[in-house]
Amino acid sequence: MIKVSVLYPHKDGGRFDMDYYLAKHMPLVRQRLGATLKGMSVEQGISGGAPNSPAPFAALGHLLFDTVSAFQSAMASHGAEFMADIPKFTNIEPTIQVSEVKM
Amino acid sequence: MIKVSVLYPHKDGGRFDMDYYLAKHMPLVRQRLGATLKGMSVEQGISGGAPNSPAPFAALGHLLFDTVSAFQSAMASHGAEFMADIPKFTNIEPTIQVSEVKM
Repeated sequence: MIKVSVLYPHKDGGRFDMDYYLAKHMPLVRQRLGATLKGMSVEQGISGGAPNSPAPFAALGHLLFDTVSAFQSAMASHGAEFMADIPKFTNIEPTIQVSEVKM
Repeated sequence: MIKVSVLYPHKDGGRFDMDYYLAKHMPLVRQRLGATLKGMSVEQGISGGAPNSPAPFAALGHLLFDTVSAFQSAMASHGAEFMADIPKFTNIEPTIQVSEVKM
């Protein structure tokens, strides 16, 4: 199993509409990917490790796929539509991490 | 539910012993935290969003707790022991993100 994490770094002047992300963007991703998508999760930053320290990331979205090639194939088909939706909820350029799930 | 993500950035000369992390460090965390810990996951970086691009993070560990105060209380009790174990598997200083699980 692989996990694709889309990490939106905290930045001054950064805007992130979590309501839109949960109600529109992630459901769009789920609908387009269908059975290729093995799981989805979303988090909103609270803090860093120390209480009241700034969170490194304003928001995080994670998608599970069986293989890297399943992810790449899905992006080839739907990536442009997903990218076009991003300005509707944020002005933050995300960091993308593709990982192997080990535990 | 809150998620504490411990993110080990990729760096030149960075060392990360995934075998030790999976077999020793994370089981130590699980044992010490007991029922306070609501879940645990581990990922190893493969790439960035583009094929063959470098992964932003070499490794990621995630811990679930009911509340931020449950996490802070656990760290007050066991954080020093967890920190002391880190040099056994990595020379990378982690980034810590505390997040609210939204989906």
